[in-house]
Amino acid sequence: MDYVVKPMAIEEKSFEIIDLEMDPKLRNSFTKEELMVIKRVIHTSADFEYSEITKFINEPISHAIRSIKKGVKIYADTNMIKAGINPRTLGRMGCEIVNYVAKPEVIEEAKLRGVTRSIVSMEKACRNPDIKIFIIGNAPTALFTLSEKIRKGEVKPDLVIAVPVGFVGAKESKEDFSLTGIPSVVVNGRKGGSTIAVAIFNAILYLIDNER
Amino acid sequence: MDYVVKPMAIEEKSFEIIDLEMDPKLRNSFTKEELMVIKRVIHTSADFEYSEITKFINEPISHAIRSIKKGVKIYADTNMIKAGINPRTLGRMGCEIVNYVAKPEVIEEAKLRGVTRSIVSMEKACRNPDIKIFIIGNAPTALFTLSEKIRKGEVKPDLVIAVPVGFVGAKESKEDFSLTGIPSVVVNGRKGGSTIAVAIFNAILYLIDNER
Repeated sequence: MDYVVKPMAIEEKSFEIIDLEMDPKLRNSFTKEELMVIKRVIHTSADFEYSEITKFINEPISHAIRSIKKGVKIYADTNMIKAGINPRTLGRMGCEIVNYVAKPEVIEEAKLRGVTRSIVSMEKACRNPDIKIFIIGNAPTALFTLSEKIRKGEVKPDLVIAVPVGFVGAKESKEDFSLTGIPSVVVNGRKGGSTIAVAIFNAILYLIDNER
Repeated sequence: MDYVVKPMAIEEKSFEIIDLEMDPKLRNSFTKEELMVIKRVIHTSADFEYSEITKFINEPISHAIRSIKKGVKIYADTNMIKAGINPRTLGRMGCEIVNYVAKPEVIEEAKLRGVTRSIVSMEKACRNPDIKIFIIGNAPTALFTLSEKIRKGEVKPDLVIAVPVGFVGAKESKEDFSLTGIPSVVVNGRKGGSTIAVAIFNAILYLIDNER
């Protein structure tokens, strides 16, 4: 069977198809940079609904780029996100991705308190002033905790990617978070997930790469 | 804000909601084990379309369980899949997940030949007789290569999870693969991805856990 085997050709053709099939009205509602992010999300999910439910709050992309260039620490709520993010640009900027969900002390405290490990891990992240970017692709409880800490003035992120997925609390956690006004990319409703979070963040890293 | 913080309660409630909202006709078309897999895929994507496009070919679940219990090696085409799979049960069975996409010799050969790293990595995997399960969540080219090797009789997997995502070749690679008749879980069309692959495989691991 004949098929395209050249990686750059595959990616170019994919983005052409996405461009063609996307609702032009929606396409024109985004800035050039936002559109790059949206297209990468569709590329990773084959789901055009993301062009309707992905929201950009308070210029998240320019805030993200400035923050990444400072070499901040980044909190990701799953190891899949950590594994999926392109390490090259991050390393060049001196950024590091952290996650505490699998730490023995986090597991133990979560068991003792009868709460998710995501809550305990997020609380720990909020105590670290070097963490300025939060990427949440899985746990609504992590996002609820982050919103509480933001409201109490305990943490003020440069950027939040708020895309937890699921049926219990995901939608509500994102609605609640959106009210904080923090620069963010939010997927409204139930959808989201680790691959969506990775697509959004990698798209921002590619924008930095393309500046060179 | 009040929200559910107990991990088991969140998961139970999620599966209840999925059960309620799923098309009963579709629900009844699956075996009990297949339904567990489908529900976990919906849980991870919040996308009910997966109940229509996910296909079980030649009793993949029982083949998978027998294979995993033998302690086989498993090839996954992305590091995100590797990061997402529950390590506990796999370790207990003596299984190991491998992936060669980031190996320097694979990167070099792919550049020289002008093909994707996924192709070179898959060719390497097909030469390893210990690899009996293939999980493909990303690259159509990896799945095309695997189908070719199966047709030539160079490899005969116990199970393939065939869920590459995207706009160039994904649909075609899955249609082509489905003709091989290998026990498999296939997501038809463009959709799929690493989180879908992980949900399918983890659901099978939970079935093994529940046997105890």
